[in-house]
Order: sequence, then structure tokens, then C-alpha cells
Amino acid sequence: MRIGIDLGGTNIAAGLVDEDMHIVCKSSLPTNSKRPYTDIIKDMGTLVFDLVNKGGVSITDIRQVGIGCPGTVNPETGEVLYSNNLAWDHVPMFEELSKYVKQPLKIDNDANAAGLGEYLAGGAKGKKSCVLITLGTGLGGGIVIDGKILAGSHHAGAEIGHSVIVAHGVRCTCGQEGCWESYASATALIRMGTEKAAEKPDSLLAKYYKENGRLTGLTIFQAADAGDEAANEVVDEYIYYIAVGVTSMVNIFEPEAIVIGGGISAQGERLLEPIRRHVEENRFCKYVPMPEIVTATLGNDAGIIGAAFL
Amino acid sequence: MRIGIDLGGTNIAAGLVDEDMHIVCKSSLPTNSKRPYTDIIKDMGTLVFDLVNKGGVSITDIRQVGIGCPGTVNPETGEVLYSNNLAWDHVPMFEELSKYVKQPLKIDNDANAAGLGEYLAGGAKGKKSCVLITLGTGLGGGIVIDGKILAGSHHAGAEIGHSVIVAHGVRCTCGQEGCWESYASATALIRMGTEKAAEKPDSLLAKYYKENGRLTGLTIFQAADAGDEAANEVVDEYIYYIAVGVTSMVNIFEPEAIVIGGGISAQGERLLEPIRRHVEENRFCKYVPMPEIVTATLGNDAGIIGAAFL
Repeated sequence: MRIGIDLGGTNIAAGLVDEDMHIVCKSSLPTNSKRPYTDIIKDMGTLVFDLVNKGGVSITDIRQVGIGCPGTVNPETGEVLYSNNLAWDHVPMFEELSKYVKQPLKIDNDANAAGLGEYLAGGAKGKKSCVLITLGTGLGGGIVIDGKILAGSHHAGAEIGHSVIVAHGVRCTCGQEGCWESYASATALIRMGTEKAAEKPDSLLAKYYKENGRLTGLTIFQAADAGDEAANEVVDEYIYYIAVGVTSMVNIFEPEAIVIGGGISAQGERLLEPIRRHVEENRFCKYVPMPEIVTATLGNDAGIIGAAFL
Repeated sequence: MRIGIDLGGTNIAAGLVDEDMHIVCKSSLPTNSKRPYTDIIKDMGTLVFDLVNKGGVSITDIRQVGIGCPGTVNPETGEVLYSNNLAWDHVPMFEELSKYVKQPLKIDNDANAAGLGEYLAGGAKGKKSCVLITLGTGLGGGIVIDGKILAGSHHAGAEIGHSVIVAHGVRCTCGQEGCWESYASATALIRMGTEKAAEKPDSLLAKYYKENGRLTGLTIFQAADAGDEAANEVVDEYIYYIAVGVTSMVNIFEPEAIVIGGGISAQGERLLEPIRRHVEENRFCKYVPMPEIVTATLGNDAGIIGAAFL
């Protein structure tokens, strides 16, 4: 048995995971990220023992407690170097958590942990390599090759959302111009939809905007699927931007699978089919099999399962 | 002792390499790529024995004969699946070469071999990971992490030149729009310089163009260094495009070193200094050390040394 903890800005989600990578039971607590880190980590310890009780196992049955943490972490020292979401700077996670939990601890970036989860037990199960692309507020990446997370020499890599796809393009929250994240995240879709709604006041998109005071990824796709021309222009352009970056990932990594997660991935084949077509047409080497392009299957559990098997 | 063979479209360059990764002696023959592949591979065998004679060693002293080959290869079967440069389609390299050479054979893509060479004995020597970026006719990549070439699941990856940096951009020779290669190769620099010369007929750039009937990467840099405004605009934009892609490589791989090779790298610090500045300003995670950004040191020998140690 293992325990995986997905430490987020809003919730600390933890799960007891068996050796077959199934979640036996889950437990969570609010992060309240403004608290001192010592309090947050104490709650992580509480969750470990809560899971042990819920699962009817002994703490000594737990082979490993793994943590997926937003930001830049040092898996060797167990230190969180920096986390924007948690406003953490050099937090000694292992030192602190080991006050409560004596089992072996592991830590990695949350996107890496989710990538490992999808690789081991989700959309890329059975594949030798995968790139997980999470289309949410941002655009996150988790890269796993032959079972090993590709994380960079100080675990600051795999930031695929901050590869530039439009030189001199839109300014990203990271400061750089033209990041993939600024064109292919859910946030980017909403920006493009909102601009289009202003431009085409008679469109269904504009109507949805007026009715709700805002657009979401879902309402933009709904307007497109209802036949609205303006919404379809936005969705087509948006999917193009996703596909451009996916093709780059294929040309760089040539993984066996590309796994698309995050809220936008709920669109399923509506999203995957045009992406596959674009990649097939545009990938560099057509003499090898196409990578499988699929949606993530584990949702938020990917981070828990991946953390448990770090 | 090992032998490395860098099979190019023009020449077959081979070298006897000692275990300290020094080239003991070299030998080469023209490829004459229009010949049957059996003749070309026979010449590779001839080169092996020529090197053994030159080096005063016995063929049984050769631990390995490695080949860097343009195109897509299968290192397991020793087959060249496809090579555009050689117009090869499913050539059984190991089967054919083993008619002449009984030593253990290895093969990989030529850019991967060069990446390994720079990693082991060149610009990235002593580093744990590196991305070699070759700015020549095209833009090639060789990625080595912890001593292992990152090549993709069927050795069709590491095509970093075909990651898109300008969505809806210039059409690349590969068919895709906006590839990094189309903005950062020497060919791209010459295209941009030639366009600018036509646009600014009074510039030094236009003068160089008229004098020579064409521009080269070198003459464009020379015009810029002589203070020509048009040429400086081109060079600044060109270096920006290199730097944009280098930043993406840093955000994706976070390697210990970025090694820039190919003809353009002869510009040295003229090129490296603004690239470093751009990466420092634009990289995603500033909480870890900057990767070293250096020029390749082995030139054409990188492919030989890398092949010898595949």
C-alpha cells in the first residue's frame, strides 16, 4: 500500500493506493494556503493517518508517501524551492512531514506526478512514453519516458506551456511573449471567445456572454456546436493552437502517447479528431507510427496515483 | 579503441577514437550518394580497415564501430528506415556492413550522434544533460540526458527544428508552417537578409548582395558588424528567433547545457551573449541556475566521436 498526496492551492487531496494502482479510499482537507506551511504540512500528516484508519491498514503497511506539489521542488532533499500557488519559498517538506510520518517520503512537481499517474494507470497505460498536456487555467505538462519523469536538471523542466508558438505574440502571465499556454489553455479560449463576442455582437457567442456576464470554455464549445459561426471560428483557431503545440511535442519527443487532460479535455473526440488530423499532416517523420492521442482518464486522481508511485 | 563513422550526403568521414574520446586518426571517402547503397556501405568497410592500418592497431582491438546516419534509423535492427539526404528507404545497414566488419555495430541518427559527441567530449563535457542545436542548412537537434540520447519511441524524435515558433508562419521544407528551422537556420538568415537587401537597396547588405550575387550567413553578420542598419535589423531579428527557441528548450528540458553548433556558431559571443540575455529574462523558472549556453567545440568531429561511443 502507498499513499499519494496531491497538494493544491485549494485542497489537499490524498489517497490510499494499492500496488495495482487502484485508489482504495480518499480523504481531503482545505489547503487554506495563507496559513503557515507548518500547519498545512501537519494536515498532510493528519490525512495520512486518516487514510490508514479508513483503509483498515496499519501505518507500517505503507511503503511510501508521495507528494505532488505545485512549483519547483528538489526531490533529493525534499525541499519545495518555490511555489507561486502556495507562496512558498524554500519549505523543507520532508523535514516537516517526517515529524508526523515515518514512512519513506517522495516528492515531485504536481504536473509531473499527474503525468506519471496517467502513464502508469490512465490514458497512456501500457505505453512506453507519454506527454501529458493539461489544458486548464494554465497549460501544464508531464513527460514520462521509459517510466522516468523528464523533469530537468533541477526539476524546473517540462514547462511545455511556456514554449513559444507565436513569436512576438500575446504576453503570458510568465512574462514571455507567445507562450503556448497563452493560446491553448482554457483561459486563452475564454480570452479569444470574449474578444470575438465583442467583435460579433449578433452572434450566439455574444448572446451567451450577455446572458452570463462571461464565457466559459464549455459555453464557447456549446455555441460552436449549435452552429454559431463566430464561436466556430474561435474553436477552430483554438484547436489549431493546441494542435500546433502537440505536433511540436510529437516532433521533439515522439512519444507513444499524447494524453490531453484538464477541463477542456471533456470535449473528447470533438477535440481529439482535428488534433490528430493536424498532427498526421504536419509531423516531421511520417515513417513511424502516429503516437496515440487520447484524453486523460484519471482526472484529479492522476496526481494521487502518480504521487503514490513516485 | 573504437571507430566512429559520420555518414553524410557528401562525405563518409570516419575516425579511430581512443577510450579517452580522442581521435587518433581520420579517413574519408566521397559518398556519391547516387550509387547503390551496397557500394556506399562497402566503402564504409574499407574506411574501417584503412583506419586500423593508419592507427597501427588490429581489427580485434576495435570494441565497436558506430555509425551516425542522416534520417530515421532503427538502432535495434540496424536498419535505416528512411533517409532523405541519401534517398534511402529501408536499407539494412548492419546486415550489409557486417559482411566486411565483424566488430559490434551501433547506429543512430547523425544529429543524435553529434549531440552525444558534444555531450561526452565537447561543449557540454562534464554536464549531466545537454541540448545540441545545430544552425546550418537546417536546424538539427541532439538531446542527451544522463548519458542517454533522447530519440523518441521509434527514433524519430529530437526534431527540435520542427517545433513551431510562429503559428501561421513561413512554410518549412517539411511542409509545416512556422518551424523554428525556417526562422533560425542559416538558410533562414540568408532568406531574411536577401529580403531586407531588396527592401533597402542603399544598405551595405544590398551592396554585398550585388557584389557576390548572393548573401551568406557570414556576409550578413559582417555587414551588421560594419554598422549597417539594415543588416543589424536582420541579425537582431534572427538572434531573437534563435533565442526564442532556445528558451523553449530550456523550459522543456532544463538541461545543464545548451550547445550551439553549425556554421552560424562561428559567431561565438556575438551570438551567445544576446541569446543568454533573452533566456535569462524569459525562462520560466528563475529559481534554478541558468543552463550554460556555449558553442560546440568539436565541429565535424562530434559526429565521429559520438558514433564511436553510441
